[in-house]
Amino acid sequence: MLRTHTCGELRLSDLNKEVSLSGWVQKVKDLGGLTFIDLRDRYGITQLAFDSDSAEDILNTVKTLGREFVIQASGIVIERESKNKNNPTGDIEIRVKALKVLNASQTPPFTIEDTTDGGDELRMKYRYLDLRRNEVRKNLELRHRMAIETRNYLDKLNFLEVETPVLIKSTPEGARDFVVPSRMNKGQFYALPQSPQTFKQLLMVAGFDRYYQIVKCFRDEDLRADRQPEFTQIDCEMSFVEQQDILDTFEGLVRHLFKTVKHIDMPSVPHMTYADAMKFYGNDKPDTRFEMKFVEMNGIVKGKNFKVFDEAELVVAICAKGAAEYTRKQLDELTEWVKRPQIAATGLVYARHNADGTLKSSVDKFYSEEELKKWAEACGSAPGDLILVLAGAEEKTRKAMSELRLEMGARLGLRDKNVFSPLWVIDFPLLEWNDGDPNLLASLAGRWHAKHHPFTSPNPADFHLLASDPGAVRANAYDLVINGVEIGGGSIRIHDRELQAQMFDLLGFSKEEAQKQFGFLMNAFEFGAPPHGGLAFGFDRLCSLFGGSDSIRDFIAFPKNNSGRDVMIDSPSEISDEQLKELSILSTAGAGS
Amino acid sequence: MLRTHTCGELRLSDLNKEVSLSGWVQKVKDLGGLTFIDLRDRYGITQLAFDSDSAEDILNTVKTLGREFVIQASGIVIERESKNKNNPTGDIEIRVKALKVLNASQTPPFTIEDTTDGGDELRMKYRYLDLRRNEVRKNLELRHRMAIETRNYLDKLNFLEVETPVLIKSTPEGARDFVVPSRMNKGQFYALPQSPQTFKQLLMVAGFDRYYQIVKCFRDEDLRADRQPEFTQIDCEMSFVEQQDILDTFEGLVRHLFKTVKHIDMPSVPHMTYADAMKFYGNDKPDTRFEMKFVEMNGIVKGKNFKVFDEAELVVAICAKGAAEYTRKQLDELTEWVKRPQIAATGLVYARHNADGTLKSSVDKFYSEEELKKWAEACGSAPGDLILVLAGAEEKTRKAMSELRLEMGARLGLRDKNVFSPLWVIDFPLLEWNDGDPNLLASLAGRWHAKHHPFTSPNPADFHLLASDPGAVRANAYDLVINGVEIGGGSIRIHDRELQAQMFDLLGFSKEEAQKQFGFLMNAFEFGAPPHGGLAFGFDRLCSLFGGSDSIRDFIAFPKNNSGRDVMIDSPSEISDEQLKELSILSTAGAGS
Repeated sequence: MLRTHTCGELRLSDLNKEVSLSGWVQKVKDLGGLTFIDLRDRYGITQLAFDSDSAEDILNTVKTLGREFVIQASGIVIERESKNKNNPTGDIEIRVKALKVLNASQTPPFTIEDTTDGGDELRMKYRYLDLRRNEVRKNLELRHRMAIETRNYLDKLNFLEVETPVLIKSTPEGARDFVVPSRMNKGQFYALPQSPQTFKQLLMVAGFDRYYQIVKCFRDEDLRADRQPEFTQIDCEMSFVEQQDILDTFEGLVRHLFKTVKHIDMPSVPHMTYADAMKFYGNDKPDTRFEMKFVEMNGIVKGKNFKVFDEAELVVAICAKGAAEYTRKQLDELTEWVKRPQIAATGLVYARHNADGTLKSSVDKFYSEEELKKWAEACGSAPGDLILVLAGAEEKTRKAMSELRLEMGARLGLRDKNVFSPLWVIDFPLLEWNDGDPNLLASLAGRWHAKHHPFTSPNPADFHLLASDPGAVRANAYDLVINGVEIGGGSIRIHDRELQAQMFDLLGFSKEEAQKQFGFLMNAFEFGAPPHGGLAFGFDRLCSLFGGSDSIRDFIAFPKNNSGRDVMIDSPSEISDEQLKELSILSTAGAGS
Repeated sequence: MLRTHTCGELRLSDLNKEVSLSGWVQKVKDLGGLTFIDLRDRYGITQLAFDSDSAEDILNTVKTLGREFVIQASGIVIERESKNKNNPTGDIEIRVKALKVLNASQTPPFTIEDTTDGGDELRMKYRYLDLRRNEVRKNLELRHRMAIETRNYLDKLNFLEVETPVLIKSTPEGARDFVVPSRMNKGQFYALPQSPQTFKQLLMVAGFDRYYQIVKCFRDEDLRADRQPEFTQIDCEMSFVEQQDILDTFEGLVRHLFKTVKHIDMPSVPHMTYADAMKFYGNDKPDTRFEMKFVEMNGIVKGKNFKVFDEAELVVAICAKGAAEYTRKQLDELTEWVKRPQIAATGLVYARHNADGTLKSSVDKFYSEEELKKWAEACGSAPGDLILVLAGAEEKTRKAMSELRLEMGARLGLRDKNVFSPLWVIDFPLLEWNDGDPNLLASLAGRWHAKHHPFTSPNPADFHLLASDPGAVRANAYDLVINGVEIGGGSIRIHDRELQAQMFDLLGFSKEEAQKQFGFLMNAFEFGAPPHGGLAFGFDRLCSLFGGSDSIRDFIAFPKNNSGRDVMIDSPSEISDEQLKELSILSTAGAGS
């Protein structure tokens, strides 16, 4: 080893030891006769000390050192004159007796400090330098710890980690697949898995009983800040279970992670139906760190000659506690905020519940104080609160109000990153109508689409609706939501061939298509498939939640940008004609696409 | 839960408990008035009992049950009349009071027993049924346990598991890449990693100090029984280390695995140079469970008018202890064996060292007993031993003798699967000449090829040979070999830009090609790259070694066949024109390839 200790290890108890350290030059401090170097590695920073007694060749070497040079220093541990209480090694320093440059460094393009001067693009290009920063490295250390603790918890419960294949079959009924041309089977392609769904179900058919895998999944979709073409799931499946068993088991996993990684006791997780989530929060992943529930106002506000409300399909309010002090300017700004294209409300009505108990609204012309008292009652407002009202087409208005609610929550400081409010959302609809989702192949538009996936069991209570009113059928599906972020989701699966065939039929598959793409699974159901279900957690997102960040990229060692590019290695890139030929494919990109 | 206990759990101490079990019908035993069912799950088998007191509807249900039906049975734990000492639950049975069929089963195409009647192909097609067999499931349980213990060991040593990307860049200097067309970057392709090599080196540049990952890797090569297009590595890297540090650390890992998984104390691992391995075993992964070293006979056998030996570049012998009793028939058969095309020796010469001390050879015409005594002396043979001799061109003869040695080891019972003989092979050559390796692109033929990979550091002692005699340069590279199987390998890496550039030059890269493909790594070396090195274990192979099998397929849940096909899901397969069009590629396979 090119060291006897790490740079985070030495203490006063090591005084007078002969040691060797290796690491990076964080800083050279030349104080005239004295020179100090902060030597950094993953484990900490230790100070190296040089004075006029140091050998001349050492002092000459010191003069050549710059930031991020890699050096090896040997010497004696001595007590510091001026101690640094903020550094665990701050009581000691090394009187250096031998010094070797292991590798030089150009001046890095940005500073390797907790707060850096490098912009996003530069830091992505030199990701290996960005990863040297404490903050970024700590994110990945957190990720490592969470993976270890996930495995510990599941292993104790008899879950087996089984690796499922990465080169599988394209079944483009969901998002787009990434595909891989096969050289040995010309004209044929593998696909990368969007999830190991069918394989984990086959493992249940195989009697594996409890399966998990921390596994890379792939989705060729247009990217957003919190999406990556490759992402990691904690993927799980259990046999002989009902929905509540799965919720209990994985609530336990999240509790274990909070306890072991963040030393937080997570309370038991409430359940909310999808219908209630939409009704009270306009959102299937409500942030329940704060209340501010939707109040439907149609019955109260209509028929008072205010055309906007009279013509609206839905009038809905929230009560922002303690926000009555909002100035006119703030309210105007908020009105502009809801009118932005991303929110797309046509306007904002407000009513102040003043500290003196009086009520004052932006639509006083139509609503007397007596009327406003009904608003206040419906909204449960108290003196000091602010009622905010949106109106319009139902779906759009709920969506806009959900955004406004989150915004008000943020403005009022109700979305503390150190508070965690988990929630099970249950009873999702089985299907949704696809009227042209850009993340699906165009040929799938104008059909029912599985909200979760085609293997999700309908709620048996709604079986009778499958043929007559498929959109009304609830699924045995559930999501775990924490702080408004969907952390995981799953379902009880279909384990009956007939029901699975019926499901594919509903989704517009011909019998032949269904058999060709999923025959292996339907056949498996004929050889003793047990009742089973499971779920998958978005591991990148879970880590970012634990780390207090909104961006999953901060928790991925080498993420891709919004165009799916790795700018560090410059990928994707062209491949040689020789490769294309061997794979029996031609690129048509040159043809002016 | 559809059960209160598993089928492996109940004991006499549970007598009189009301329990529910769920599982598969292994066997229905109808003894007239009494019927027993062996109910199986992953955890064991429990006997269900029915008699004439059982309710009629239950007895009627029992009559409908066949092999592999999934049922739920509730009842009382009672003591068995005739106990089964071979089954941990064999003291009890369940008197069934309620019985429910959870799913029926067709008769499976082969028996779900430890010894099955299903052929390979059938079992692969119905892999989910094959996985129900104890033997196959135990292999995957072993794999799970080995992964957990690997992580435990490395986590304790401060290794961080970091996930590296799967969608990377094609750099076809090694085996062929699998590639993935990018929809968003038309005409461009990702590649799947043959290993995370460059990323783990960048993590060292990033100061991560100790990295590991249990990770899928991909190689598009023509398959053999022990190769899969996707395979799993335990991939590791360390900074500030020298070769011996890496050998010590990972010898420790293997020792930990032997101890925790197989309860075997592994002795310290001897080192052997590549040169010695080739000289004494004709093989860079010698099986050292037995000696039977090569003895070079040129100096002893030449000049006695035996043309075969006189004209041979190499005459080499092994001494098979205790095999002097081999009959003429056996020796003829062995001669035929070495003449098979796979071995391709031209013939086999033998000399018996008889029990009475006399010596008798198949070439007595040319060699007197006096001469044969010299053979015996050189080979260290004793009465009762058999000396086997091959002759011919050096490389080919060493290879043939290596095969013969392994064959004799097997025939003499010296290759016990429960004995483990680990070995570090060190000092590999840096380069080998590629005169048309079918696993490389044709355009790479007629060049030097990196024996390990282009990032391996030459041995500093041989730097002076890099320009003048590249084939003689040794690498700082090492393999861990156990029982003749290469379990892992690695090297000290280049961390200097200039040396790396020189290496690419040696491998026939132009400066531009090197910069385009590996510029990111060479640039990284300019910003303070620490000395580093690492290794990777073939996890599939390590598991199969621990499990006592020669085939890695037995340790992969869903393996592919020799054509790279998954016959269960029927993949690879054709994709739709809509998909091809979106990806801007055309398949040329129809064009009569």
